[in-house]
Amino acid sequence: MDKKSERILSEENRLIEFKDQSSIIDQIRPFLEPASIAVVGAHANTGEQAFNVIEHLMWLGYTGNVIPVNPEYEEILGRKCYPSISEVPDKVDLALLQGPRSTIPGVVQQCVQKGIKSVVIAGAGFADADDEGRRLQNEIVNIARRGGIRVLGPNTIGSANPFFNFSTSFARQTEMKKWPVGVVCQSGMFFGTIGRLNLLGKGVDLGNSCDVDISDVMEYFVLDPDVKVVVLHIEGVIDCNRLKQIAGKACRKKPVIVLKTGRTAESGKAAKTHTGSLVGRDEVWDAFFRQYGMTRAETFDDLSDLVNAFCYLPLMSGRRVGIVTASGGIGIACLDACKKYNLEVAELGVHTKRKLNAMSPSWFEIANPLDIWPMMLTTKQPYGETFRDIVGEVLGDPGVDGIVLFAGAWFDRINPPITRTLVDLAKTYPGKPIAWCPYYGWLYDNQSYEIEQTLMSMGMPVVFSNPEDSLRALAALARYQEFLNDSQ
Amino acid sequence: MDKKSERILSEENRLIEFKDQSSIIDQIRPFLEPASIAVVGAHANTGEQAFNVIEHLMWLGYTGNVIPVNPEYEEILGRKCYPSISEVPDKVDLALLQGPRSTIPGVVQQCVQKGIKSVVIAGAGFADADDEGRRLQNEIVNIARRGGIRVLGPNTIGSANPFFNFSTSFARQTEMKKWPVGVVCQSGMFFGTIGRLNLLGKGVDLGNSCDVDISDVMEYFVLDPDVKVVVLHIEGVIDCNRLKQIAGKACRKKPVIVLKTGRTAESGKAAKTHTGSLVGRDEVWDAFFRQYGMTRAETFDDLSDLVNAFCYLPLMSGRRVGIVTASGGIGIACLDACKKYNLEVAELGVHTKRKLNAMSPSWFEIANPLDIWPMMLTTKQPYGETFRDIVGEVLGDPGVDGIVLFAGAWFDRINPPITRTLVDLAKTYPGKPIAWCPYYGWLYDNQSYEIEQTLMSMGMPVVFSNPEDSLRALAALARYQEFLNDSQ
Repeated sequence: MDKKSERILSEENRLIEFKDQSSIIDQIRPFLEPASIAVVGAHANTGEQAFNVIEHLMWLGYTGNVIPVNPEYEEILGRKCYPSISEVPDKVDLALLQGPRSTIPGVVQQCVQKGIKSVVIAGAGFADADDEGRRLQNEIVNIARRGGIRVLGPNTIGSANPFFNFSTSFARQTEMKKWPVGVVCQSGMFFGTIGRLNLLGKGVDLGNSCDVDISDVMEYFVLDPDVKVVVLHIEGVIDCNRLKQIAGKACRKKPVIVLKTGRTAESGKAAKTHTGSLVGRDEVWDAFFRQYGMTRAETFDDLSDLVNAFCYLPLMSGRRVGIVTASGGIGIACLDACKKYNLEVAELGVHTKRKLNAMSPSWFEIANPLDIWPMMLTTKQPYGETFRDIVGEVLGDPGVDGIVLFAGAWFDRINPPITRTLVDLAKTYPGKPIAWCPYYGWLYDNQSYEIEQTLMSMGMPVVFSNPEDSLRALAALARYQEFLNDSQ
Repeated sequence: MDKKSERILSEENRLIEFKDQSSIIDQIRPFLEPASIAVVGAHANTGEQAFNVIEHLMWLGYTGNVIPVNPEYEEILGRKCYPSISEVPDKVDLALLQGPRSTIPGVVQQCVQKGIKSVVIAGAGFADADDEGRRLQNEIVNIARRGGIRVLGPNTIGSANPFFNFSTSFARQTEMKKWPVGVVCQSGMFFGTIGRLNLLGKGVDLGNSCDVDISDVMEYFVLDPDVKVVVLHIEGVIDCNRLKQIAGKACRKKPVIVLKTGRTAESGKAAKTHTGSLVGRDEVWDAFFRQYGMTRAETFDDLSDLVNAFCYLPLMSGRRVGIVTASGGIGIACLDACKKYNLEVAELGVHTKRKLNAMSPSWFEIANPLDIWPMMLTTKQPYGETFRDIVGEVLGDPGVDGIVLFAGAWFDRINPPITRTLVDLAKTYPGKPIAWCPYYGWLYDNQSYEIEQTLMSMGMPVVFSNPEDSLRALAALARYQEFLNDSQ
């Protein structure tokens, strides 16, 4: 794509300037909550490896009207199949277009004629490919612009919404969960699971982003009451001014977490090939994210941790961390991480020290980080009660804004179990985040799975795996609180 | 501890200068493979929360002679209990000392008189605590020195050896596995599991390191045929010259991976309190690790990844990486990570491109990173065969030294399944590491556990969770190969 066509794409791309909130809701909602969907290029093969969107929708329990379109079939999975979109008699809220790229502009034209307002183009081979692909994509944009319709893609998995049992994905997701998270991404990988990252609540894959773009969907998610945290995966952005405009408002209302890939000259070039979008220098992005109060995730695991923290932990009102561990060695690693993420190691108050001293062997000095083990082995109480008392004292100290806690999954077998204790403490101190690291080896042990399930059932599905991750998350919670304070 | 006593400790500490390899083996082996163990301060409470070492040893299946010592009992768990170590008639290979700190020097003296050569002091409250504790520790060192015995600790969990069904740990470990890894650490946390890190094969916790130190155990592990990879957790080291001397030999024989905590001034001070050892500036440590060919892990997760990589993947003979993904977006994140870890993005050869082109849609350009999805959806072969052909072509390219592969756990359900394909390819190209990221969300899904089990049963228990982790591991494999080449 040459400079000129880039500029033209950028200018022509903005089909509609949204004047009020109702219009963005009206325009984006059909991609996530369509009352009906026409699947152009549907087929009748079934099974996990058939990638049959209609079967997938049935499996999800989607209750809207599903209309197959393909001249080769009379019916698909019990539904009457129409030879073309023009011949569908029903009202169509969303059209999902599959099939060879050369056919797509014609089908989009038919969608316009039928009065369909929202179209997903799944296939690749457009601005992500060659000159012919770019020509076809421009043709699609022109048709959409003239027809006043919104296009998601091309080169996209589309959208997914567990709150509506809906997805346009051709691949069956492992699990869709009603997490209070809205994800805008430029890759279908978010519809699978990356590292510790599962599909996060509602998701929209922008693909080549020929029309519907990051700002549209971000604006929608900020207004969506199901969404508490907005996640952006950015490779590049076409309309940066609009992104700034929307981001400026969004971050004051909801936390926005960003994973920016295509950070170097080489990968930026590849990102342009991948989805035809532009990238900029990484330092510029970094400054932009900071200025607008966005939280930048450095890695996929980081993203997962931050999403969990912002969904389920309170913001941190200051930077003073209490470090409670069942190992002196971990305490030292936590100090390293505090320094790295610019957190303060809290000075425990006289009252706290007195209470903890009474539980300790004489030679033991109460300090932060606090190794609980000498106290656990000294006091005559049951382990669970001693543990609860120690953590409660540190968390309740007025000089502590949040804690990081290293105590193994084993602590769930003491009485009261650690999960119960932490859920209770979280309720007692609702303004202080507790970052728990139940150190177990997920790789060789499925005990972790059981713990997660217990925690989730108690409404506290947040754990971290090491000092770095937990303290980075606490630092992000503190920084976002500072941003909100500063922007009042 | 003042400057003078530090110096004295450092000089007096070295009880014996090892003249040959047999002596270090003789001196350290009893800590890991004792024919008999006397447990001083044993008790008769049982159950997981009783922290009964003897019960733990029975549970592990330890077949050596276990001798309880405690004046309060006649017998413990069916074993005759002696009032003091002096009255034990049997030969004692290793004595584990529990109980109040003031009693310990006297018991060490009794051990010397009985001719016991190896003693573990579990309890805390010595150089890790106050002046009295430091005095007691110095007394112990003096007794040990005069008596010609080796002391591990104080303030230590002791040792663990799954190859011998042995552990001195008072806490029952989740799992001990015969991983080919020897861990020397300054924290009991390694005997639990941290993040993705399980107890790694044989382990020795140095505690306060009053006698047996990091160099002793490292030297032993380098000579131990069960150990393929040596792991060091360092907070601080007393005898740096000896560490240099041993490290200089060790790294040419086996990969040594280091996690250094106590990196900052604050945490270094805490590390000194924790185990009484000295720390130095982090940049100095960094230069030292590089010079001696040690691989530095930055975080606990990093340590886990590196240990797995060095245990089960071949070293990488160059820095040219092939990137094969089921998502264009992940490919871009991999390019970012290649840049970060100084790896080269391989240029695919003409032959490889020709083969892959034949499988692709016409508009698709074969490049590295390679998104497999357009090929998977185009060729008429079963998915598993196409996948195998694609990965085989890239891995077989002479311009590729190793690959990173992003393909979901789902790919284990195609035929042949991904695990089978990768195990076969690893055999075909034994000099090229394959870093597989089966992106699944471990947090909410125990499918990962099943995949791990399958992989382990096939002898390839290595997976990574994201682009950063996998490429950092490949970079470490390449760097260690470079070190070996340079030091020939």
